[in-house]
Amino acid sequence: MAIFSITKAGADRGTKITTGADVRVAARINNFNSPTSGLAPTFLQANLVVLPSRYASDFRLLCARNPVPCPLIAESTSTGCWNSVTSTIPGLNGGAILSDCDLRRDVPRYMVYKDSTPIKKGCLDIVDEWTDDHVAFLIGCSFSFESALTAAGLPPRHTTLNRNVPIYRTSIPLCPAGAFTGSTYVVSMRSYKASEVERVREITRAYTATHGEPIAWGWDAVKRLGIEDIDAPTWGESPLTQDERPLGDVEGEEHDVPVFWGCGVTPMEAVARSSLEGVVMTHDPGCMLLLDCRDSDIVPAACVA
Amino acid sequence: MAIFSITKAGADRGTKITTGADVRVAARINNFNSPTSGLAPTFLQANLVVLPSRYASDFRLLCARNPVPCPLIAESTSTGCWNSVTSTIPGLNGGAILSDCDLRRDVPRYMVYKDSTPIKKGCLDIVDEWTDDHVAFLIGCSFSFESALTAAGLPPRHTTLNRNVPIYRTSIPLCPAGAFTGSTYVVSMRSYKASEVERVREITRAYTATHGEPIAWGWDAVKRLGIEDIDAPTWGESPLTQDERPLGDVEGEEHDVPVFWGCGVTPMEAVARSSLEGVVMTHDPGCMLLLDCRDSDIVPAACVA
Repeated sequence: MAIFSITKAGADRGTKITTGADVRVAARINNFNSPTSGLAPTFLQANLVVLPSRYASDFRLLCARNPVPCPLIAESTSTGCWNSVTSTIPGLNGGAILSDCDLRRDVPRYMVYKDSTPIKKGCLDIVDEWTDDHVAFLIGCSFSFESALTAAGLPPRHTTLNRNVPIYRTSIPLCPAGAFTGSTYVVSMRSYKASEVERVREITRAYTATHGEPIAWGWDAVKRLGIEDIDAPTWGESPLTQDERPLGDVEGEEHDVPVFWGCGVTPMEAVARSSLEGVVMTHDPGCMLLLDCRDSDIVPAACVA
Repeated sequence: MAIFSITKAGADRGTKITTGADVRVAARINNFNSPTSGLAPTFLQANLVVLPSRYASDFRLLCARNPVPCPLIAESTSTGCWNSVTSTIPGLNGGAILSDCDLRRDVPRYMVYKDSTPIKKGCLDIVDEWTDDHVAFLIGCSFSFESALTAAGLPPRHTTLNRNVPIYRTSIPLCPAGAFTGSTYVVSMRSYKASEVERVREITRAYTATHGEPIAWGWDAVKRLGIEDIDAPTWGESPLTQDERPLGDVEGEEHDVPVFWGCGVTPMEAVARSSLEGVVMTHDPGCMLLLDCRDSDIVPAACVA
């Protein structure tokens, strides 16, 4: 059985999986079905949301009204189209973002919802569910700025520990849009020393297509965002274990403070919390769609200092 | 003394003040210095924020990250330019939005801040404060969709009572952007019957350049937005007086519920709550800049049902 035969470790051992297209092809033939963090470095990764066409304009509006947690980067070229996308990033065409694709198979694992209730988790394709009435949307992912942080000597701790980023539901309301009401921001967290926060803000600011600079930071922010327990994220992995230094301040030494970014799980949460009729598909969190463009392609030249 | 010689009542009596340009010229020669609600119907009105150029890119980013409360519609054609603007609305050029203007004089009343502290309130021009280093930004105003609501048989109550709209500071955080941190949404409120809310949402949805559909509605929303007393707005006029029907539900009859929209006071509040150095100017709330384009010009054809 071919599943799991290409893994991140496999890639490290020399298996040819260096580009976004490599990952898509491996997922398409069911040779790869794991989380994509760290795969094909510098290739952009995206969240996927597939909706019945009657919700398409409301979803575009949801993204337009909430661009920080829901940065829309591309959508199906036409209703029912699963093999090409139209870009919504100025200066970057659909083909540059994604060519040679099958949106029904190229994600390692998918989720399927019916009437806003999950009916399949972790399935390998959505060929049976996709209809001529479906429209796919690609949403930016914060993996894109992690390499920039690492290059600046500020690697996110979860990457150095080879873990998933901690992700939290918050109480900050999204601006509603048509059928999409009653949902809230989802945030990812990376911890830094308070003295590093301004530099972290500067580095991530230009990545406007992938959540941009943080939305909140410091211990005050935990309560302000309505997060009950920083050690118990809603998705991803806990920032704390026994052997690690604590996040909190300890007298005489500067410890980390939490820094929160808008997260691409937000539109999936908006799908799950709205009352949508019909079949909706998304990627399985962590198992992203790999694109052809690079992290650096989405930083507008005008934004680079 | 010419001040106050042209008033809304004056306009009703036949004084020639029917276009946005008429209001600008009257303000320019100090013939008009009152709130602009109801003046030159169907001409778009805008909030004005004038910043030292070093804050311009951060302010653009603040608007891009918070498009519902801070819909940027135009800015100075170049640094220091007070007589022409460049449009940020697709399909609408700067000249169509505003021609023959003097941004230093064409607003009926201005506010001036130094180091984020107000130093002048209600002044008639900002000629002495404007420098070659200033950049002006125009932000959409929700007056634009009030005529659409009225045309649909849903006039906002404050307009039928000839009052100012009630405006509230909330606890919902803005997404920070560079120098602009620590501020929150400001919202305007119009009350409707619960059964009318979906129609009100539909009518205002297309006005994306002027706050679009409501961000929250119903009595639950008051607490969720962190509003302490609905009868005591932060700006504008109270929705309640002795002789009016109450907003709250009373058994056996359908009374109004509050409906909240993003408000253009938000960017002014962001200026006041950030630690900006130098001189910043804005319009005085209620005394808007009148434009040459019409309310209908800013509704994308694709959004009209």
